Amino acid sequence: MLRRNFLGKLVIIALLGSCSNLLLTAWVQAQDPLPSWNEGPAKKAIVALVRATTDKASPKFVPPEKRFAAFDQDGTLWVEQPMYTQVKFCLDRVPAVVQAKPELAQVEPFKTVLSGNREAMAHLSAQDLEKILTATFTGIPVEDFSAAAKKWLETARDPRWQRPYTELTYLPMLEVLQYLRAHGYKTYIVTGGGQDFVRVYSSRVYGIPPEQVVGTAVGTKYGYGPDGKPFLTREPKLLLNDNFAGKVEGIHLMIGRRPQAAFGNSTGDREMLEYTGAGSGPRLMMLVLHDDARREYAYGPARGLPDSRIGTFTPALDAEAKTKGWVVISMKKDWKKIFAWE
Amino acid sequence: MLRRNFLGKLVIIALLGSCSNLLLTAWVQAQDPLPSWNEGPAKKAIVALVRATTDKASPKFVPPEKRFAAFDQDGTLWVEQPMYTQVKFCLDRVPAVVQAKPELAQVEPFKTVLSGNREAMAHLSAQDLEKILTATFTGIPVEDFSAAAKKWLETARDPRWQRPYTELTYLPMLEVLQYLRAHGYKTYIVTGGGQDFVRVYSSRVYGIPPEQVVGTAVGTKYGYGPDGKPFLTREPKLLLNDNFAGKVEGIHLMIGRRPQAAFGNSTGDREMLEYTGAGSGPRLMMLVLHDDARREYAYGPARGLPDSRIGTFTPALDAEAKTKGWVVISMKKDWKKIFAWE
Repeated sequence: MLRRNFLGKLVIIALLGSCSNLLLTAWVQAQDPLPSWNEGPAKKAIVALVRATTDKASPKFVPPEKRFAAFDQDGTLWVEQPMYTQVKFCLDRVPAVVQAKPELAQVEPFKTVLSGNREAMAHLSAQDLEKILTATFTGIPVEDFSAAAKKWLETARDPRWQRPYTELTYLPMLEVLQYLRAHGYKTYIVTGGGQDFVRVYSSRVYGIPPEQVVGTAVGTKYGYGPDGKPFLTREPKLLLNDNFAGKVEGIHLMIGRRPQAAFGNSTGDREMLEYTGAGSGPRLMMLVLHDDARREYAYGPARGLPDSRIGTFTPALDAEAKTKGWVVISMKKDWKKIFAWE
Repeated sequence: MLRRNFLGKLVIIALLGSCSNLLLTAWVQAQDPLPSWNEGPAKKAIVALVRATTDKASPKFVPPEKRFAAFDQDGTLWVEQPMYTQVKFCLDRVPAVVQAKPELAQVEPFKTVLSGNREAMAHLSAQDLEKILTATFTGIPVEDFSAAAKKWLETARDPRWQRPYTELTYLPMLEVLQYLRAHGYKTYIVTGGGQDFVRVYSSRVYGIPPEQVVGTAVGTKYGYGPDGKPFLTREPKLLLNDNFAGKVEGIHLMIGRRPQAAFGNSTGDREMLEYTGAGSGPRLMMLVLHDDARREYAYGPARGLPDSRIGTFTPALDAEAKTKGWVVISMKKDWKKIFAWE
């Protein structure tokens, strides 16, 4: 009898505990989950997706295990101008590589990089960049790559704000990540950038663990050090080019499910948004438009904004967004604050 | 004052609720988490890892976000004899493929498959099997592949027990998966089998979601149907061969971290166990030895067991396990029960 009483009390206490948790949850939900967003269609669309998919009474309810959201990184979660952060990381490595292999000093694209001519460097082709990536960061153990990236991120500073690159994340987007996760969404980065690069800081900066980072990846090769200890070497072989249609292929490979929501900012995200939108049930597709030269950058060339080789947002993409109900986020109008340190 | 009282009560109730949860957790922990295991070094090793890595006072404590365990599937989580389940799935598809392309009927290896000669089929080479896989399940949308696998699994029966293949999972290993997850471990399948095949049933059968299945994968290609709807096609191109060293490469690609524990049963798992063991801190490496012909199968050729082309467990692997402290699980001695329906 005593035991039954004890267990009964235990159950009552557990139930009361659950009730108080529910009350606390309700209180948290009553706060604005997106305080850096101005009221408008963009904010409304995000809140509407979360409400519809997490309310069990909603016809659009999505069970927690199917709640996935995919985020492009460069230009969507953090600044990508005047140059992708990872490209700068590789360029900064060139002098050390040339010191080890002096014959490269007279060979393009290394010659241009060593010249220090920013204008010329900004015009390096994708093939040039691939050559640089191969020369700087393949043929080395994956641990060495991670250590080099970590060290570089600690000291490197963005040319405009003179801050660590990892401080150039967009506060409103960090709020979206947090808001989605608080409602059972698994948040993934799906980036054209290097998977191993982003994994170095994704947990700390975005709260996204390494296994939820899908990115461009080189192959690796298993081997042994002189001490017999096994390690993986980064091979000069592209395994996954996580751009354009490659983003969808990467999502299938690494997640195996269609996201409920996808966030991007350029033509490189078009297929990811299209694929996300082709699923049944409630979906949210959003594109960040960089239209705030004062607080960040302004580039398109959609809506008369200056053209850009990086993060191109074409009028055609803008038109497609309109047709398909993808929501364009105006940095200027939708974001109260862009950076946490503003 | 009323409000403070209310909040105070809320906090007390929440605390009591947490206490009762703790008591319930303690009660659950007091139960044997591995009831299908006999007492012995194997069971002891599993419990020791969990205790050491989850006790905050332990010098071997591992924070939850770093708790990963990798499981081979064929021969480790379910039966792999007399033929890998997925191979049977592909072979069963051959008649339909030949009906669509009658010229294949006279071409090997299709001719052998159509002959129905089990002995001959059992001796098909890896290249033959790749030809069959390519002919049966590439050039089709990924959704069609998943639908075909799902349908086949519903009706196909294992030749020995006449049960659905998904019932041929090892109960003691299901308990290990459950036990690890209950202690904050993320459980992954790392299989030489096809990633998209295993993903069809991994949630239901193992409690492992699709995104935690690492396996052999073909490339996919993004395209559009006649209705303009985008879809992915399975390409006849191997992207990831998740066997031997490929398992480590797959782990790096898909997880990006070294597991704390790895479970396998054959030479194909050697590198995965070696890589897991090369990490610092507490690690657990285990190999299932199939030494129970009566209840399941007996094959090695380690320890005088019959040789096998599938799931080979060589004397060299056995010796390496001994040297490196990998724990060999004897199905005969360590497992009270092998299947849930026994």
